[in-house]
Amino acid sequence: MVTTDALTVAVVQMAMVPSRSENIERACELLQRAAGLGAQVVVLPELFESQYFPAAINDRHFGFATTAEENPAIAALSPVCRTCEVAAPVSFFERAGERYYNSVVMLDADGRCVGRYRKTHIPDGPGYEEKHYFAPGDTGFSVFTTRYGRIGVAICWDQWFPECARDMALQGAEVLVYPTAIGNEPERPERDTAAPWRRVMVGHAVANTTPVAAANRVGLEGKQCFYGSSFVCDGYGDVQAELGRDEEGVALYCFDRRAAAEERAWMGLLRDRRPGAYARLSSKS
Amino acid sequence: MVTTDALTVAVVQMAMVPSRSENIERACELLQRAAGLGAQVVVLPELFESQYFPAAINDRHFGFATTAEENPAIAALSPVCRTCEVAAPVSFFERAGERYYNSVVMLDADGRCVGRYRKTHIPDGPGYEEKHYFAPGDTGFSVFTTRYGRIGVAICWDQWFPECARDMALQGAEVLVYPTAIGNEPERPERDTAAPWRRVMVGHAVANTTPVAAANRVGLEGKQCFYGSSFVCDGYGDVQAELGRDEEGVALYCFDRRAAAEERAWMGLLRDRRPGAYARLSSKS
Repeated sequence: MVTTDALTVAVVQMAMVPSRSENIERACELLQRAAGLGAQVVVLPELFESQYFPAAINDRHFGFATTAEENPAIAALSPVCRTCEVAAPVSFFERAGERYYNSVVMLDADGRCVGRYRKTHIPDGPGYEEKHYFAPGDTGFSVFTTRYGRIGVAICWDQWFPECARDMALQGAEVLVYPTAIGNEPERPERDTAAPWRRVMVGHAVANTTPVAAANRVGLEGKQCFYGSSFVCDGYGDVQAELGRDEEGVALYCFDRRAAAEERAWMGLLRDRRPGAYARLSSKS
Repeated sequence: MVTTDALTVAVVQMAMVPSRSENIERACELLQRAAGLGAQVVVLPELFESQYFPAAINDRHFGFATTAEENPAIAALSPVCRTCEVAAPVSFFERAGERYYNSVVMLDADGRCVGRYRKTHIPDGPGYEEKHYFAPGDTGFSVFTTRYGRIGVAICWDQWFPECARDMALQGAEVLVYPTAIGNEPERPERDTAAPWRRVMVGHAVANTTPVAAANRVGLEGKQCFYGSSFVCDGYGDVQAELGRDEEGVALYCFDRRAAAEERAWMGLLRDRRPGAYARLSSKS
């Protein structure tokens, strides 16, 4: 039953190949498939235009960065969003003069860009050399008003930080969405982060009584096997839609925005916050 | 294998009866049982001296409040902690002049009080009328240095707030412990909060790469059935010890503090925080 209060969120899980144009084409296809299933907001994985280049330090990858205006994935997806009437955050490697960011532009259901977010938290370690490429984001945490509601968008490593989720909830996000690229740890093969990765986001959902969606890539790229496990959970952390560790595809969850807001109010967590007691969290010392 | 780096945390789950002295006696017994199993830090449920009086508004309950010095549970448990060489946060209804708090004193393994914490976040709703009784805590979030390490202690509703867990982690807590009293919702019997209650704390464990322990009561008290489900999880959110929804008893988890600190550093979450981006969290507007 679709009403004006219903919101259907989809996560797209895909494997990336070396060809940029093939990845973009595949993203467009999967977005169309999600729209055909009723999706209104579609979350694609992080940096889906390429295989995960921050796996290693190689300065020729900087040549891959573009402005939002020059980016071929945004150019390709914008008319697809308009035709399908889908809103979608699109992840890309952004060049801004001599600085580079891990960014998202939010396309609304008319294909227009309604805002940009630059990843705030940048990881670093074997297989995830992001601090070499990306400056820490300077946009602040972002919630975008779209045709279908207020969508909080953050990117991959951001998803481990409760501060980011809370900030988006305080801005009135009705769903928190995370484009992602995460897989095994090349130098610690015994440490599988898939379960904790999901748990921390399920925790954000409960702490903010707000649904969460995460879209990850799959497939083996060199030493890294990206573990998919994309999901959408409701505001109590019940997983409502998910994909496996290997498959490509789409998973959808439809919820009632008004009912979700009533649950949020009923829980009272945002009512009972004590901002005056939280100074240590924003202290730089 | 007990080494100087090993820390064994126990949660005690118990049902409360009308008699204060019987509850205190039972708490002492269960603490001794936990110590006999090797526990060094023992977490008792919230307000274990009585059945859960904030279930309803009844002003004669104010007469139950004491200072820490006058409190019979603290007086009884202090020598037991000394004899058993156990550190334990002890929850009680605190009177401080004309103000009343939901408080904990931390007893170290020599039986001495090493600090006090007053619950920061106060719930309110049918069956949980705490705003009628308790002023919001004024101590700030608290981490206590004990013989066995640095113990972060917060109380029940605090456990739903990532800000509280993060603050304790930033103060160097090696484990986060929560005395608790939570059960069904008398006016919404279909809404079982047991799973989200656990998920949000599992989320704190992962977000801070720090073990978490929660001790809840069990049993039917009037319209409320307290659901137990006390647990200890590690810093990746794997539940390592737990109790059911009905049983009384003790559950223990032993971890290596040094190894836990190494995992915390390896994850890099505290490294990659961006306090300058978190101003909205501590903003009062």
